Amino acid sequence: MATLAELRVQIDAVDDELVRLFEERVRLGGQVGDYKIQNGMKIFDRQREREKLKDVAEKASTEFNKKGVQELFEQLMAMSRKVQYQKLVEAGALGRLPFIGVKELDTQNARVVFPGTEGAYSQAAMEYYFGEKCNSFYVRTFRDAMESIEEGAADFAVLPIENSTAGAVDEMYDLLVEFENYIVGETIIPITHTLAGLPGTELSDIERVYSKGVALMQASRFLDEHSGWQQISVANTAIAAKKIMEDKDKSQAAVCSANAAKIHGLEVLVDNINDDPNNSTRFIVVTNQKIFHKDAKKISICFEVPHESGSLYHLLSHFIYNDLNMTKIESRPVEGRNWEYRFFVDFEGNLAEPAVKNAIRGLREESRSLRILGNY
Amino acid sequence: MATLAELRVQIDAVDDELVRLFEERVRLGGQVGDYKIQNGMKIFDRQREREKLKDVAEKASTEFNKKGVQELFEQLMAMSRKVQYQKLVEAGALGRLPFIGVKELDTQNARVVFPGTEGAYSQAAMEYYFGEKCNSFYVRTFRDAMESIEEGAADFAVLPIENSTAGAVDEMYDLLVEFENYIVGETIIPITHTLAGLPGTELSDIERVYSKGVALMQASRFLDEHSGWQQISVANTAIAAKKIMEDKDKSQAAVCSANAAKIHGLEVLVDNINDDPNNSTRFIVVTNQKIFHKDAKKISICFEVPHESGSLYHLLSHFIYNDLNMTKIESRPVEGRNWEYRFFVDFEGNLAEPAVKNAIRGLREESRSLRILGNY
Repeated sequence: MATLAELRVQIDAVDDELVRLFEERVRLGGQVGDYKIQNGMKIFDRQREREKLKDVAEKASTEFNKKGVQELFEQLMAMSRKVQYQKLVEAGALGRLPFIGVKELDTQNARVVFPGTEGAYSQAAMEYYFGEKCNSFYVRTFRDAMESIEEGAADFAVLPIENSTAGAVDEMYDLLVEFENYIVGETIIPITHTLAGLPGTELSDIERVYSKGVALMQASRFLDEHSGWQQISVANTAIAAKKIMEDKDKSQAAVCSANAAKIHGLEVLVDNINDDPNNSTRFIVVTNQKIFHKDAKKISICFEVPHESGSLYHLLSHFIYNDLNMTKIESRPVEGRNWEYRFFVDFEGNLAEPAVKNAIRGLREESRSLRILGNY
Repeated sequence: MATLAELRVQIDAVDDELVRLFEERVRLGGQVGDYKIQNGMKIFDRQREREKLKDVAEKASTEFNKKGVQELFEQLMAMSRKVQYQKLVEAGALGRLPFIGVKELDTQNARVVFPGTEGAYSQAAMEYYFGEKCNSFYVRTFRDAMESIEEGAADFAVLPIENSTAGAVDEMYDLLVEFENYIVGETIIPITHTLAGLPGTELSDIERVYSKGVALMQASRFLDEHSGWQQISVANTAIAAKKIMEDKDKSQAAVCSANAAKIHGLEVLVDNINDDPNNSTRFIVVTNQKIFHKDAKKISICFEVPHESGSLYHLLSHFIYNDLNMTKIESRPVEGRNWEYRFFVDFEGNLAEPAVKNAIRGLREESRSLRILGNY
């Protein structure tokens, strides 16, 4: 039996040959690209790719190897396509992008909507992104904010999409599919909850605590120490603060930011009550125009996955083979089709890049209802 | 310039060589596997793989090709490892199963816990799975149920994990990680909400509607038609029904099942108010013993993914190469580590199958904190 060192010498020799053939294949793929550009042909040739996969599988000798070479050639063909898209870009023939590139978002004269009321975390995120003096108004719910954007009552909305401890804001994912609004920016702010009540309130006075459900959850360790308190969820943390002031009842308290407490004339009874001291939330900036910042670095898309073994895996291969770094993947049920899912993927890239074009072309071919939610 | 047909002849010749070299590399990888088994060596050799990637990149001539061959070899080495794991299985070197196989779950004499109160959907799921006369009791929350199991106060718990319209029950995923309890069964039941109140209540009497937050969401179209109603979320739909009866206040109503209404002496004011008429929920059966039914067909696992481009994709490749069909993938934030994720995957298989052993072995090697949550 060969030693490990001997086997590795043999493997290294095979690998040298593989590198050489890989380079040769890329070179030939580039020539195919030149030919296609000169003759106005499409880069993606589904039939040719299918035949190639069938052909190489037939040439392999075991079941394992048939699967393996197919996987290998899917990768090689994706790379070939990437070279060809690159050539298209160099020839200035990539064609129009579905989004209009802008140099700057007009954040100075924009009218911005946020959900909740004065003192909401969304307002803090908005002021961080648009500046403290931005022209803004609030509505009650996330859906109301999406409608304000769609109708043009506001130019932008600032909405939470993900919390570092609670995870994805499912409702926002569903609303991004329902409305034809687009993500043009994002910002992360720290979320530090306090327990706030009427000035002079003692903890022993409290019987009911109001807040947004997810905020109650983020402060569950503190609240569990006071198991006699009834927890009541309302639309927003700042709406809870406002209610406490309006009701003027010391048996009630709110979980909200110190800022919301101050704005609504409440006293912070206990500071920093969230379970995780580094609790933070990512907010997205949404508009109704299909635009993207020319220097945008992150793309959000969603698509439905057909009911076939390995479908999701094959779809994800388009990111890998195009060297696009996925930063997030989420799934949500598809309405009206039990136990089918829609996936949301964030990845690094700009719509003007050939690798992105290549990946999106492939994904659209193999998934259902692909949508680009924004580049920001 | 060469024609497309001429270029393709050249590409086909390169491809034939690539298939041949691929097969040679798999064969040599298998021999390395034999050597490693005989010498008790680990399959995954991180240093060797890193050196190989550096080496092939140095041999490639352009930046594009350097990246390309690295991607290619990451895939080739992953396949090589899979061949080697397969050999480990064939050599019987993977050892004892971490779960004890049983022929039957003792559902006849079991004591079963469900969250909520009499009339909860979890109770309906429990009766569907264990029979209507099963020996059971209820606790308030999902966490309470997991604690009852851990302490041995109950043999099994029945808990919701996923709804067809609302999606994953995030809290349950977190609890499955926190507790050392295991999934041994699952069942799906239809969820049909009603609006229930004290007998004789008119819709115009109602001011406040109580239910579990997710149930209010599932009936949001109906409730939105009555925007004057305040929506208050409580721990459970049946707890809401019980509260309405106890408070004896016609300004209050509950969103709950017709059965919960009946049990707590309420009248169904409006039947079938969920947005989706086919609304249904999947419940899991959980126990504190590390057992699995010998004929079990589905496995749930979770693992954390390292912060590297393509990590998730490489992990998923273990399911594909072992021909294991993924039926579900979910992600949740990892506590205390902002913006890192833990993935939950369901796939078809039984822990006694070599393909499953093979996949889990590979996943454990390349992921962080892999846990088998159950085989059922």
